[in-house]
Amino acid sequence: MAVGVQQLAAALLFIFGGVLSFPVGQEMKDTSTCGYESCHATKSNMLNVHLVPHTHDDVGWLKTVDQYFYGDRNDIQHAGVQYILDSVVDQLLKNPDRRFIYVETAFFYRWWKQQSSSMQQTVKQLVNEGRLEFVNGGWCMSDEATTHYSAVIDQMTMGLRFLNETFGHCGRPRVAWHIDPFGHAREHASMFAQMGYDGFFFGRLDYQDRARRMMDKEQELLWRASDSLTPPMADLFTGILPNGYNPPEGFCWDQSCDDPPIRDDPDLEDYNVNDVVLRFLTIAADQARVYKTNHIIMTMGSDFQYENANLWYKNLDKLIHYVNAQQANGSNVNVLYSTPSCYLQELHRANSTWALKRDDFFPYADDAHDFWTGYFTSRPALKRYERISNSNLQTCNQLEVLVGPTSRKGPFGTGDSQTMRKAMAVAQHHDAVSGTEKQHVANDYARRLANGWQHCQVLVSNSLASLSGSSAERIYCDNLNISVCPLTESSKKFSVNVYNPLARPVSWPVRLPVNGKAYMVADANGKSVDSQVVPVSRATQGVRKKRGFAVNELVFQVQAPPLGYTTYSVSLLEDGPPPASTGHRAPTVIQNKYLQVTFDPDTGLLSSLNNLETKQSISLTQNFYWYNASDGNNSESNQPSGAYIFRPNSSTPFIISKTAKTEIIQNSVVQEVRQWFAPWVSQVVRLYADSRALELEWTVGPVPIDDSLGKEVITRLDTSIKTSEIFYTDSNGREVLQRKKDFRPTWHLRQSEPIAGNYYPINSRAFIKDDVDQLTVVTDRSQGGGSIHNGSLEIMLHRRLLYDDVRGVGEPLNETSDIFPEGLVVRGRLLLSLDRPSTAADTHRPLAQEVVLQPLLTFTDGELDPSSQLEFSGLQAALPPAVHLLTLSQWDEDLVLLRLEHQFQSWESKINSKPVTVNMQKLFSSLDVLGMSELNLSANQWKDEMKRFDWTPQKEERPLLKTFEDPSMWEVTLRPMEIRTFLLRVSLRSASD
Amino acid sequence: MAVGVQQLAAALLFIFGGVLSFPVGQEMKDTSTCGYESCHATKSNMLNVHLVPHTHDDVGWLKTVDQYFYGDRNDIQHAGVQYILDSVVDQLLKNPDRRFIYVETAFFYRWWKQQSSSMQQTVKQLVNEGRLEFVNGGWCMSDEATTHYSAVIDQMTMGLRFLNETFGHCGRPRVAWHIDPFGHAREHASMFAQMGYDGFFFGRLDYQDRARRMMDKEQELLWRASDSLTPPMADLFTGILPNGYNPPEGFCWDQSCDDPPIRDDPDLEDYNVNDVVLRFLTIAADQARVYKTNHIIMTMGSDFQYENANLWYKNLDKLIHYVNAQQANGSNVNVLYSTPSCYLQELHRANSTWALKRDDFFPYADDAHDFWTGYFTSRPALKRYERISNSNLQTCNQLEVLVGPTSRKGPFGTGDSQTMRKAMAVAQHHDAVSGTEKQHVANDYARRLANGWQHCQVLVSNSLASLSGSSAERIYCDNLNISVCPLTESSKKFSVNVYNPLARPVSWPVRLPVNGKAYMVADANGKSVDSQVVPVSRATQGVRKKRGFAVNELVFQVQAPPLGYTTYSVSLLEDGPPPASTGHRAPTVIQNKYLQVTFDPDTGLLSSLNNLETKQSISLTQNFYWYNASDGNNSESNQPSGAYIFRPNSSTPFIISKTAKTEIIQNSVVQEVRQWFAPWVSQVVRLYADSRALELEWTVGPVPIDDSLGKEVITRLDTSIKTSEIFYTDSNGREVLQRKKDFRPTWHLRQSEPIAGNYYPINSRAFIKDDVDQLTVVTDRSQGGGSIHNGSLEIMLHRRLLYDDVRGVGEPLNETSDIFPEGLVVRGRLLLSLDRPSTAADTHRPLAQEVVLQPLLTFTDGELDPSSQLEFSGLQAALPPAVHLLTLSQWDEDLVLLRLEHQFQSWESKINSKPVTVNMQKLFSSLDVLGMSELNLSANQWKDEMKRFDWTPQKEERPLLKTFEDPSMWEVTLRPMEIRTFLLRVSLRSASD
Repeated sequence: MAVGVQQLAAALLFIFGGVLSFPVGQEMKDTSTCGYESCHATKSNMLNVHLVPHTHDDVGWLKTVDQYFYGDRNDIQHAGVQYILDSVVDQLLKNPDRRFIYVETAFFYRWWKQQSSSMQQTVKQLVNEGRLEFVNGGWCMSDEATTHYSAVIDQMTMGLRFLNETFGHCGRPRVAWHIDPFGHAREHASMFAQMGYDGFFFGRLDYQDRARRMMDKEQELLWRASDSLTPPMADLFTGILPNGYNPPEGFCWDQSCDDPPIRDDPDLEDYNVNDVVLRFLTIAADQARVYKTNHIIMTMGSDFQYENANLWYKNLDKLIHYVNAQQANGSNVNVLYSTPSCYLQELHRANSTWALKRDDFFPYADDAHDFWTGYFTSRPALKRYERISNSNLQTCNQLEVLVGPTSRKGPFGTGDSQTMRKAMAVAQHHDAVSGTEKQHVANDYARRLANGWQHCQVLVSNSLASLSGSSAERIYCDNLNISVCPLTESSKKFSVNVYNPLARPVSWPVRLPVNGKAYMVADANGKSVDSQVVPVSRATQGVRKKRGFAVNELVFQVQAPPLGYTTYSVSLLEDGPPPASTGHRAPTVIQNKYLQVTFDPDTGLLSSLNNLETKQSISLTQNFYWYNASDGNNSESNQPSGAYIFRPNSSTPFIISKTAKTEIIQNSVVQEVRQWFAPWVSQVVRLYADSRALELEWTVGPVPIDDSLGKEVITRLDTSIKTSEIFYTDSNGREVLQRKKDFRPTWHLRQSEPIAGNYYPINSRAFIKDDVDQLTVVTDRSQGGGSIHNGSLEIMLHRRLLYDDVRGVGEPLNETSDIFPEGLVVRGRLLLSLDRPSTAADTHRPLAQEVVLQPLLTFTDGELDPSSQLEFSGLQAALPPAVHLLTLSQWDEDLVLLRLEHQFQSWESKINSKPVTVNMQKLFSSLDVLGMSELNLSANQWKDEMKRFDWTPQKEERPLLKTFEDPSMWEVTLRPMEIRTFLLRVSLRSASD
Repeated sequence: MAVGVQQLAAALLFIFGGVLSFPVGQEMKDTSTCGYESCHATKSNMLNVHLVPHTHDDVGWLKTVDQYFYGDRNDIQHAGVQYILDSVVDQLLKNPDRRFIYVETAFFYRWWKQQSSSMQQTVKQLVNEGRLEFVNGGWCMSDEATTHYSAVIDQMTMGLRFLNETFGHCGRPRVAWHIDPFGHAREHASMFAQMGYDGFFFGRLDYQDRARRMMDKEQELLWRASDSLTPPMADLFTGILPNGYNPPEGFCWDQSCDDPPIRDDPDLEDYNVNDVVLRFLTIAADQARVYKTNHIIMTMGSDFQYENANLWYKNLDKLIHYVNAQQANGSNVNVLYSTPSCYLQELHRANSTWALKRDDFFPYADDAHDFWTGYFTSRPALKRYERISNSNLQTCNQLEVLVGPTSRKGPFGTGDSQTMRKAMAVAQHHDAVSGTEKQHVANDYARRLANGWQHCQVLVSNSLASLSGSSAERIYCDNLNISVCPLTESSKKFSVNVYNPLARPVSWPVRLPVNGKAYMVADANGKSVDSQVVPVSRATQGVRKKRGFAVNELVFQVQAPPLGYTTYSVSLLEDGPPPASTGHRAPTVIQNKYLQVTFDPDTGLLSSLNNLETKQSISLTQNFYWYNASDGNNSESNQPSGAYIFRPNSSTPFIISKTAKTEIIQNSVVQEVRQWFAPWVSQVVRLYADSRALELEWTVGPVPIDDSLGKEVITRLDTSIKTSEIFYTDSNGREVLQRKKDFRPTWHLRQSEPIAGNYYPINSRAFIKDDVDQLTVVTDRSQGGGSIHNGSLEIMLHRRLLYDDVRGVGEPLNETSDIFPEGLVVRGRLLLSLDRPSTAADTHRPLAQEVVLQPLLTFTDGELDPSSQLEFSGLQAALPPAVHLLTLSQWDEDLVLLRLEHQFQSWESKINSKPVTVNMQKLFSSLDVLGMSELNLSANQWKDEMKRFDWTPQKEERPLLKTFEDPSMWEVTLRPMEIRTFLLRVSLRSASD
């Protein structure tokens, strides 16, 4: 077992000062009997029923996370987490047999810091005795369909770190617990395996899938969650809970339930002990029939339950007493207080073999017309804002490490990364970035992110001041996507600092709102850079309303060093009216050295895409459509489309316009065709001179609803690629899975929703291919999509709905705001690349990372300080193309958390799908690495202490645990899709080094 | 302070064995600081806000008492008292400053007996430290409008006894607490004063009354609750709570409330401490403006609150902390945890004078058209059953004392009075006998009473067997009111035992269902008694349905000894068809030696009543009417009539029939005119040969609703008496209050409901009078009534309504049952007497007691056991006419509780309104009284230790506490309306003494 990282970190600091090697895995003596040792005994000759008291506390949903914590706005939903924890602790103390699990560290942390030290001691005791056990333990229970792995790892790390530092090894969750998310991503399973969890439990899966698994007793299985990592590295034992995460019917004793309490006083009316026992035995027997061992689990709790834990425990105490009393009369049922890990331990002891699963659990349907595939796209603006925020947080983290303490306290005041980290962590919740919260809660998540970014901006400004030696004010323009930036709109001379958070140099197009006609742009060496001024598009003018007044955009390409910045200076050359647009005639071709893009002159739509390097050519038509959202008024089912559920009224979407009005802009930096489809749909098809990807910048909204029809807007790419009903989507931004129309790998699907039942989450990319062509679409946020027709790929961009989908949120997904009272307008980008299948990843992997971790622009008005340092890289050299620097984040005073990732799957690139070695001492330019120790993925256990349960798959040998040797002390080898996590002891080199 | 009665009782037994005098008032040393000593300090220069955490736990309402206790049927209403007490105790332990009051011993008792002894010790400690304080403390919080004082005293005694025996003097409530009852009876205040309470708080009063009192700061007052008892015997300090019994708006922190919690973590969103403090200070200042002292009270709780007490206390702790913290900034508001008694103590210390009130708080209206006067009559069958049950319980109690242990365990098995006592106690609850509970709860109360009666029947049978020396089976005929009794219907020879629970001999008409034509009836001496057979009335045949098959009734008058029985034997003389009724012609006159009653030959209605002794004569018409119940569809107010509220659609009732079809029966025993008004309304006007009262036996129902109109059925007596808009009603069966039309004694009434606003509760009698004539109506149950017209008195008999009145019960009052699916049929009796006003009480006082404590008939089949004792009296002699034996009940092995009552008011009888003395040693024929000690009315404190707060009325001197000396050791003098309560040490004389 691992000892608290905090303690070890201290040990590590002490031990390897100056030395190159250091011991890891120091075990501290401890009298606690937590974890598996603290489980209640079971009876091998009986059916053991594991009762697991638990609460499911959404980190925001109908109420904000703080409203949930305090129990505020109980008019919306009765829920107060502070009281839940108060009550559970009280009740655990009343009977040492009782157990409770807690899941969401975002809440536990808030509660903990309000407790007295004596209460904290009491709780520690409960944890040390295994009476209070943490499961999952991340900051939240993340969504699986719409999250990016980078943010998920961060939030898990933050939650688990708090538990580790507070409780030591007894606080380390053994079990992952995603009882509520609406479908399950393979990448999540892979991450959980690498985080050291022994098993994983969830509650929701397709109803047909469940029925088949019940029949075949395959509700417990072994999930092989990576096709690249060597088993059992990404193998995760997975259990499907019997009643979602609810108690069996009739046995809910929470204050929110109405089930009859056990009435065992014969002096009062309605003595019901016999009835309760009989009902329980029947349910237990029924459940045992669909599981494999003589152990079954019952989740005794639900959403925000246990606010008054006495009700539950008083009745559970009685239930256990009276049911077990029947053993004297020959009953073979043994009920006990348990936890998921105790249950898991019994399954492990059963020494059975388990069905192997290699695909994922998407999409999730709970009935024939109830596919939870709408939330893949719901709240597209929030989804994008979350993704940008992640990028900004990583920049903030990196600069904190690269600059040290002066980043947090400097000329611009006090900044921090923690606020943003917490905001990002709660945003990963399965009703946050998923878009399935109430509007006011979505606003709260966005506000938190904005607030976090305020804190980070101070840190970034301090850092850039420190690195550049100039304390000139840094100005942030967060609205460049709609061409708003007061500084650039009015200034005649300013500079642009471009910070690149990737560990390799990037070339990046910059577009700045301006009012001049011509500008002089110079790079850090004073060299002039090609720049062009183009008129602001009609769509942008419409969207930005009264914010900003730029009539033009200044466009130029920047080159930024790895993990560092460069600076460009911009000077107005010529004032004056905007240049006339090049022409209103439909263009037929735009092209650069890599791509040629043709348009149909009659329709103004794309017609083909050619890769000039590979000499590939496909026909490609693209247009916008909307599905008419079901209003529930339907003979087959009364399910409407809503925040969760996508249910089109018809499988044929309505076309918005068969033709686009077009405008063309062509210059040395960029060529763009501006397409106008309707007052609420437009697009810019854009090709930068330097780019291997074609950019489709779409703008959708306000979606009209004056016809009282809910609309789900898609864009569809129709190509000549022979897809054979197959397409591919990524899982949480990492490994790619194959999807086949009307098909599921593990059961015989009866398809009942031809569109919604073929939608899958797209987190960063999707592609279609045949033997010769692969068209990859990189997205800028999570979206839902499908391939309904041969050669076709559709992506849902925006949704505006008029009905609630009856899954609790209680609001139609009909986004408006102060700025957009008539309905939200959303803008985004799709990046298209056409490649040979065998080399496509070499393009789309780095492309996608550029979208995820985008350069951060900061602006300074006026002349540049001549003494300031205009360029900086935190790395000694760019990392190899296969290696992604996933995490660089301050851990403690002298400790830094580093994650390096091999970003290619084992099969996808001849060049890049190979092991690659990085020398840790040659990594940083401004830091000396004095020591390092490897951790599990979530950084709450030393890597060499990870000892997970081993499980045997059916029809296959149990995989041998394979260990790979690194070439040397400081050299770290990464294999395809491997992420390696290190705690580094570093010292900052002085700026003059 | 009184020490626990149990302890003293033991002392008393030990001390006065054989001696005639004994010390009372032994004070035991005690380190506890409960009661007034345990109150938190206040600040004399500040406004002190007393926060009183409390829960209001209905002893049945929407759920049965046991459902409420267990938290069963939370689908009806979320409420579980077991959890409330669990939770409150837990929370009190967390902070010694916290306080809680508990009220309903019916619940506390159930909870207490399920606790471990260590928990019991913990609770005792809390009580001894004044942290948990009992207020009111009766078995329930009784209704004030529909209860009889005898049952109220019993239920209070039972609850307070449990507290006394469990907790000693720290368990004695100092304060009466009737926060929910819907209007307040003067007799209740009188009883509370005599029970030793220092003060009384309630929540509901007429909205006009409250407005006036707020303006004049008279929400706290001194209630002089008797016009007969010497002040301050029945003076009760009375406080009207500021928000009913709820917390001020915005400050409800129960799990059932949605008010914002105090959010005091500056790290979380929505820090609201400043807002909360400001709102609180505003409310406190507003409240202080309408009360007299610098102390105000806030009830922090409501119905079934504190199930999760943590929510309340956590926020109250914070409220106190943050509000008092403002004192440092100059705030003069001091908030503290408190209790009603601590608040009362501060009012007492204020040494102020208080407005004196002499009337009562009926009727209660919470708005202009919302008079709570319907429940005076609601559920008339339950109200009658409760009254009969009280009679049966008193008989059961008496026989238990008179016979001793063999009553409880004898030839008929094990019987007890406790079951019935508990059933009666819960039936006193303000949503029980009041008729304002849901139908299933009303059924539960009735079932409990029936079950209690089963237990009592065994005790009664055992007792009669013991007293008579015959263990022949005793048969009970509980359906004689509808002429059903299988034994008498079929037997040719049987005997009737008549037990009289009154302390004076009674003459009582007996009517038995029979099928013979003539019977021989003989008294205990074998002397033949005049008997007659009359045909069962058409109405009775209709009502009893298939139960019973008697065609005739055997009628004869029995004479029963005081507190004892006699036996009559009945033998069939002649079988055969029923005698033809005397005639169908409308009679004009029936009369006996006391009364002459004339009928209008045209209408069949009563036309006059003459007292032949006093030579009084009045014209008297009587008929039946119904008010059309408002359905709420009304421009003035949308208030419908319902279980609580009476709101006729029009002030003019509909007549049911202008004429009655009549039949006359006349014989030597009884003369009756049977009137038939409609299929659902009939009446027998009946005059027994021996009676000074005219009996009107009404039968109403099923009230037709096929016209979709709710109906409130009244009978109205219209006389020639000149009433001057005044009539009189009793208060809880004791003192009589004057009522004046459209008038209230303490404020200028704006009458908005000319009928409902003039209705008052009638518990046992009402009368109208002028200088020469008084017509008194004695009722057999509580009913509502009014005098709307000069000379007129109307009484509401039955109600059938189609709408809920929106006061929570959620059901229309539309009673049906298995036997009466088409609607409940109700039968009852009004007893009319016409007297001179100065002597009327001499008739109606004993008459009403005969109705309240009616003889119990038991039957034995076949020949009488010749050796058996056919007559018995428990008394050496009948008590004087002014004295009523209110209670004779076993207290402990050798101890007996005795209450003697002077049943006349000081002004109502020249003969009887005088002090009267009773010698306690000459009381009982079968018991030796070895010792006695006087108690307060509720038997939880020695009389000579009662030290109540003294209060000074405005405009009057503070009354001097007057003590009256009894003539000698064993002689007890009773003054008008006095009840004296004694604990007697007795020994049973052997039967042969």
